[in-house]
Amino acid sequence: MSDASQFISKRAQSRKSSHFANVPSDKPPAGFKPHPKPLLLSYGTPNDGFFPIDSIEVNLVEFPFEHQSKQSHLNGHSKEANGQAKEANGQAKEANGQVKEEKSNSFRISRHSDTPELLDLSRGLQYGPVSGLDPLLQFTKEFISKTHKPAYDEWNSIVTTGASDGLNKACDAILDQGDVVLVEEFTFTPFLRFVNNAGGIPVPLKIDLSQDSNGLDYNYLENLLTNWSKEKPNLPKPKALYTISTGQNPTGFTQTLEFRRKVYKLAEEHNFVIIEDDPYGYLTLPKYDSSRFSSNDQVDPADLKNDITIEDYLTNHLTPSYLEIDTTGRVIRVETFSKLFAPGLRLGFVIAHAKIIDAIRNYSEVVNRGASGLSQTVVNNVIRDKLGGLDGWLNWILKMRATYSHRKDLLLHSIYKSEAFKKGLVDVIDPKAGMFATFKVKFLDPAEGNVSSDEVVAVGKQLLWKIISHGVLVVPGYNMSVDPDFSLERSNFFRLCYAPLNNDEDIIESGKRLTDAVLEFYNNGNKF
Amino acid sequence: MSDASQFISKRAQSRKSSHFANVPSDKPPAGFKPHPKPLLLSYGTPNDGFFPIDSIEVNLVEFPFEHQSKQSHLNGHSKEANGQAKEANGQAKEANGQVKEEKSNSFRISRHSDTPELLDLSRGLQYGPVSGLDPLLQFTKEFISKTHKPAYDEWNSIVTTGASDGLNKACDAILDQGDVVLVEEFTFTPFLRFVNNAGGIPVPLKIDLSQDSNGLDYNYLENLLTNWSKEKPNLPKPKALYTISTGQNPTGFTQTLEFRRKVYKLAEEHNFVIIEDDPYGYLTLPKYDSSRFSSNDQVDPADLKNDITIEDYLTNHLTPSYLEIDTTGRVIRVETFSKLFAPGLRLGFVIAHAKIIDAIRNYSEVVNRGASGLSQTVVNNVIRDKLGGLDGWLNWILKMRATYSHRKDLLLHSIYKSEAFKKGLVDVIDPKAGMFATFKVKFLDPAEGNVSSDEVVAVGKQLLWKIISHGVLVVPGYNMSVDPDFSLERSNFFRLCYAPLNNDEDIIESGKRLTDAVLEFYNNGNKF
Repeated sequence: MSDASQFISKRAQSRKSSHFANVPSDKPPAGFKPHPKPLLLSYGTPNDGFFPIDSIEVNLVEFPFEHQSKQSHLNGHSKEANGQAKEANGQAKEANGQVKEEKSNSFRISRHSDTPELLDLSRGLQYGPVSGLDPLLQFTKEFISKTHKPAYDEWNSIVTTGASDGLNKACDAILDQGDVVLVEEFTFTPFLRFVNNAGGIPVPLKIDLSQDSNGLDYNYLENLLTNWSKEKPNLPKPKALYTISTGQNPTGFTQTLEFRRKVYKLAEEHNFVIIEDDPYGYLTLPKYDSSRFSSNDQVDPADLKNDITIEDYLTNHLTPSYLEIDTTGRVIRVETFSKLFAPGLRLGFVIAHAKIIDAIRNYSEVVNRGASGLSQTVVNNVIRDKLGGLDGWLNWILKMRATYSHRKDLLLHSIYKSEAFKKGLVDVIDPKAGMFATFKVKFLDPAEGNVSSDEVVAVGKQLLWKIISHGVLVVPGYNMSVDPDFSLERSNFFRLCYAPLNNDEDIIESGKRLTDAVLEFYNNGNKF
Repeated sequence: MSDASQFISKRAQSRKSSHFANVPSDKPPAGFKPHPKPLLLSYGTPNDGFFPIDSIEVNLVEFPFEHQSKQSHLNGHSKEANGQAKEANGQAKEANGQVKEEKSNSFRISRHSDTPELLDLSRGLQYGPVSGLDPLLQFTKEFISKTHKPAYDEWNSIVTTGASDGLNKACDAILDQGDVVLVEEFTFTPFLRFVNNAGGIPVPLKIDLSQDSNGLDYNYLENLLTNWSKEKPNLPKPKALYTISTGQNPTGFTQTLEFRRKVYKLAEEHNFVIIEDDPYGYLTLPKYDSSRFSSNDQVDPADLKNDITIEDYLTNHLTPSYLEIDTTGRVIRVETFSKLFAPGLRLGFVIAHAKIIDAIRNYSEVVNRGASGLSQTVVNNVIRDKLGGLDGWLNWILKMRATYSHRKDLLLHSIYKSEAFKKGLVDVIDPKAGMFATFKVKFLDPAEGNVSSDEVVAVGKQLLWKIISHGVLVVPGYNMSVDPDFSLERSNFFRLCYAPLNNDEDIIESGKRLTDAVLEFYNNGNKF
C-alpha cells in the first residue's frame, strides 16, 4: 500500500514523544543487571493510597428512560414492549413492566482488582497513557473490527476526549498552513475552528437536498476536482475531505456504500484523505411507516420493542464506513461515546492508519494528555463488567436505536398530519440514521420562485422568530453553512433534532408548534 | 490598572465564540413575545433518559492510606495518630484506630437532584460549558479567594483538564510566533512542547542550587533583563516568565514572598507575564527534625497526626502566590486536582485576568471542549456534599500534607544516616513544599574540581546505571534541563520523588539503595 506518512503534516511530523523520567534508552554498561524489584523515586505519580475515593458503585438502567417515565410509555418502550424485549434477550422475566428493585443492575469499581480487562481505581484515577487506558483502547479495536473493519491491516486506535477532540487532532495530523479541506456546505461548523487552528482552508461542497439523496452532490464534487485549477486557481488541490457520511449534520442524509465507493475512488485519483465523522451513525432508523400509528396517533407497543438481532443489524441496517473500503490508509474515522453513552464523559476515539494515530498521540501530549481516566474506567467497566462486552454494548445500541426510531417517527408523524404539510408548504426528509431531520420550507425555495435567493436568509430569520414565538427552537440551515453566499439557494431549511425532548407528548407538540408557526407566517405573506 | 488584553496573543485575539444552535442575538421583530415553555428541537444533546447510568455511589476514605495498610503505620498515620486526628477534628470517636464499617463515608449522585450546588448526572453526564460546570467553577473561585486571593478584582477562573492543559492554554493565550519565555533551567520539560506549539522560544534562567535558596537565581535574572539587547541580541524582550515557584520541579525549592515581590517588580519594569505553575504547593512541609526519630529510626505516632489548624496553615505555612501581589493582571496561575485528589480525573483550573480567561475559553472550544463532566461531578460533590465544602477540602489537604511530610522526612532520614552522606559525598535539599527533593552528588560538582563540566553528564549517566542496578529509579537533573549545555555545571543532581512508593519500608529502603549505589560508584573511581 501507499505510505500513509505522506498524509501527515510537517508540524505533526516534527513532534517527538519522550518522558524525562523514563529509564535511559541507551546501552547499559558491561556488567549491568536489572534489579528484580526496583523502587520508584522517579515519576511524580502520587501513590493511589492518596486518592480519597476508595470505591465507586455504578447503578445502571436496562433500557433508556427506564426509571424516568411515570406514564405507560417509556418514550419508545411501553412497559409491555419492555417486557417483551427482555424475553427476546433470552431473559425469562415477567412481562409486567415493573421497575426492577434497585441495585439489581449495579456493580462496583474497587481501588484494586485482579481482573486485567476491568479497570480499578488505582489505574483509573492514576496518570495513564495519552492513547487511552489499555482495556478501553482494546475495546475500541474489537468494536471496530466487528462493526467497520478497515480493509487493510496497519490501522490503530486512540482514545480522545470526544468527537471535537478527534476532529481537531485529525486536522492537526494532516493539515499544514494553506492546505485545502473540502467540507459539506452545511456541516458541524465547529469543525471550521479545527481547520483554522491547523492553518487550513475550507472549501464548501454542494449538498443535494432532495429526498433519498446521498447528501453530498457527487457530480459537483467530481467536476470540482477534475477542473480544480480552473475553478480554484489560487488554491492547492485538496488535502482532505471532511464528511459526516451517516445521518449528516445538519441534513440527516446517509451515503450508500455504492456512493462511498465512488467518492473513495476520487480520493485515490486526487490523493486526498477522508475524515469521516460519525457520532450517531449507529442509530440506524427504519423508514417512517404510517401503519404503525393508530387512528388516534398512538403507536402499537409491539412495534416499539427492539426486534432485530445483532447479526441482522450489522448485515442489513448499519451503513458501512469508509474504513471498510479503505485499502490505502487514507481514511480517518472519528467516533464518540457522547451520543451512545453520555456527552459529559468527554470520551471518544479515532481509527486510522497507525502512522496517523502516532501523529495524533504526539499532539495529544501537547493539547490534553488524554481523556479522563474516571470516564474511561466507568465506560470500560459498564461495557465489560455489566453489559457483557461487545455484544452487550451492541444490544444497548439497539435499544437506543429503537427509542430514537420511535422519536423520529413521532416527530415526522406530527409534521405529516399538519395543515402546512398537507398544503405542500413544508417537507421533511426521513433520515436513515442519526438524530437530525431536514425540515424544508418549500415556499422559501428560490427554485420555486416565491423568494429570491438574496432574500432566503432575511425571510428565514423572520420565520425563525415566528417559530420561536410559537415555543419551539430549531436550527436554521444557514447557521451551519460554511459559506453563506455559496449556499443561499439551499438555505430554506431547518435542522430538527429529536434527541433532547423529554417525552412523546413534547415531541408531538413540537411538530405541531413548528408547522403552525410556518402556516401562520405563510398566511401573513411571509411576514412575522 | 493596565489593560490585560495587551498580553493576549494575536492568534488568541482572532478567535470568537459562538454556537450555531443559539437563539439569534439580533433584535426580534415588533410584536415578538417569548414563549413561556419552549420545546427544544435545536441542540444535539441527547435527553438524559438515554444515559445508561442511573446513579453512582462514591465511597471515601477519611485519611490517605486508610484501608491499605496491614501494618500499624498507615504511611504517615499510625492508627493511634489517626484516632487522635479525628478527635482533633472535633469528632469524638474512639481512638482505637479501627477502620470504620464500610459505607459510613459514602454518598450518592443521582440522575436528578434539586440541590443546585451539587451536580446530578443529568448535568454531569450532559454537554456542559467549556469553562466548567458552574458549582465546580464557583468552588475554584471560593478556594482561591481563601488561599491566594489576587490583589485586583477583574480576575476569573476556568476549569481545565489538568496542569498540562492549563499550561498549554496559557502559552496559546499569550505567545505569538517568536515570542520569548523565560524558563527555569531545570523544569517540567513538557512545558517546552506547549511553548513550541504556540511558536514561542524558551530561554533558560539559572537556578541557585544551594541550601535555602529560592531556586531561581535573582541576580542572573535581573542582569539578563537589564542587559537583554546585549545578552540576547537576536531575540525580542521576554513576553513571559514560567516558574514553578513552590516546591519547584525538579529541585524542590520554594520562593519566599519577599523574593516574589522582587521578581514581580521586574515583571512590571520589563512588562512580562508570570505563568505560575503550582501543582503541589499546598503540600507545605515542615523542616526535617531528627528528634522526631527514635534511636531505632521509628517515628513517634504522635508526631504524625495533622496538628495544625486551617487558620495556622493559611497564615503561617502556605506560601503566598504571585496572584496575591498582582495588581496589573499579569499573573496566570495554573492549578490541578491531580496531586491533591487524583491525576486520572484530568481536572484542574487556571486563575488569571478575566480577559486572559476569555482567551483560554475560546481556545478550549478548539482543543477539547472542557473537562470530563463525570470528573467534575465527582470532585464537586465529594468536596461539597461529603467533605463539607471549602474547610473540608482544606482539612483533606492538611491530611495529605501530614503524610507527605512524613514521607519526605523518612527519605531524608534514610539518606542522612548513610555512609555516603556522612562521608560528604552527597547532600539533599530539604524542600519546604511539594513532592521533590534535590539529591546532589558532590563529587560530580565541577566547582569542586573532581569532574570537569564536560564530563558531568557522561559520568552522571554511568552513575545512573549503577543506581538502577541497585534497584531504585530516580530522574537525573540533566534530563529536565531546557538547554543541557547551559546547565552542565549544575547537572550533578537527581530528582527524588517520595510520592509513588507504597510504604515506609520502601521509602527507607530506597534511600539506602540510592546512597549505597553512589558510595559504590565513588569507591570504584567514578566508574560503574
